[in-house]
Amino acid sequence: MNLGTLYGIGVGPGDPELLTLKGLRVLRSAAVVACPADRTGRPGLAARIAAPHLRREQRLTPLYLPFVSDEAVLAAAWSAAADTLYADLALGLDVAFISEGDVSLFSTFTYILREFQERYAQVAVRIIPGIASPLAAAAALQLPLAIGDETLTILPAMHRIEELEAACAPGRIVVLLKVAPVYEQVYTWLKASDRLEQAHLLCWVSAKEERIYRRLPAAAERLPYFSLLIIRPEPAARR
Amino acid sequence: MNLGTLYGIGVGPGDPELLTLKGLRVLRSAAVVACPADRTGRPGLAARIAAPHLRREQRLTPLYLPFVSDEAVLAAAWSAAADTLYADLALGLDVAFISEGDVSLFSTFTYILREFQERYAQVAVRIIPGIASPLAAAAALQLPLAIGDETLTILPAMHRIEELEAACAPGRIVVLLKVAPVYEQVYTWLKASDRLEQAHLLCWVSAKEERIYRRLPAAAERLPYFSLLIIRPEPAARR
Repeated sequence: MNLGTLYGIGVGPGDPELLTLKGLRVLRSAAVVACPADRTGRPGLAARIAAPHLRREQRLTPLYLPFVSDEAVLAAAWSAAADTLYADLALGLDVAFISEGDVSLFSTFTYILREFQERYAQVAVRIIPGIASPLAAAAALQLPLAIGDETLTILPAMHRIEELEAACAPGRIVVLLKVAPVYEQVYTWLKASDRLEQAHLLCWVSAKEERIYRRLPAAAERLPYFSLLIIRPEPAARR
Repeated sequence: MNLGTLYGIGVGPGDPELLTLKGLRVLRSAAVVACPADRTGRPGLAARIAAPHLRREQRLTPLYLPFVSDEAVLAAAWSAAADTLYADLALGLDVAFISEGDVSLFSTFTYILREFQERYAQVAVRIIPGIASPLAAAAALQLPLAIGDETLTILPAMHRIEELEAACAPGRIVVLLKVAPVYEQVYTWLKASDRLEQAHLLCWVSAKEERIYRRLPAAAERLPYFSLLIIRPEPAARR
């Protein structure tokens, strides 16, 4: 029997209509749809975005992919997830792994992909990009993400907060992804450096719960995981 | 009569199937579709991407939006383009301005948008993001664009080549857009700094003419305008 194909599909930041035509076609054609899930096996955002597009006959495979720093725990989880996917691929079934946003930009699919490249290289992989949240955020704000000779820097806030100062140079736009855990630090720094007016906060961009703060709230204790911040240090290009 | 709505739609990097479902719905519903065109009025890449999706009854409005540095020439062109669009909007027609890639990331729609924000603020604007070429490039290479605590920097090569050295720090991935005019300079710098192996060149990503160079060619005289380079200074995250 032939092996199935593994697809990585970016399903966009929240609005099911921000899936691409290609993503939809492939998503609906796969026998098995795999998605990130929490510890209890409950599917996450990607599954919710894809839900309106799925056929009843398709099997949903939730995969627990933890967000921890323990390398051994991570390696075991990715390895187990790849084995789970391979079991279906070995039966000749096509498997679509869905990821919120894009599938190459801070997506757990990267780890799945690496497992396949190293251990199951015989499996054909196809990757279908998706709308990344910074693009949807700029669209919602009606603000250019970058233009002219500007530079765009995208970084996961929780890891690289110490780089903020360097990143926020003239002509540079900075997007901080997953800003929730370090929001207060970022707010304090923006205030101290007189940059509060340059920052915009977006939560659950394009989803039903979308919240847009054109002025930053001083305290945001209940910021969701899917929160990002755009800092535009300069006026938007020429006038 | 009510004013029409102005839509900015990112149609993706080349493959018509990389349009979003929302982009398709809105594109097909607009009476008028406006697109960037060259000096002779010939529509550019965006129109080619959108072509399979258009209805016969829709009117295509090519807009000449020059790539020059003369501010007066630019201002006149953007102003004229906005006036052209407004003429239809004032008749109550919905107008969709299409842009290759995303509509907020180095897109001429930014200038159109500014004209409307300043001179025709009474017109409702809606922006629909699109797949940006760096995302499609990473998907084609089956390489993560960024993961873990990495930082992604996207810059237009022709303007910021002097920033390459600073941008290519450990843990940073750099995407140079529109690399064609400065390709030889970039190649020379990559070679001198022993980074040739870290760089990938993609032309017309996802389009029929797509060319992928996993090893950089020494000379690339005929690189098309839509060429980008990804530099990954480090091994892709943990193994």
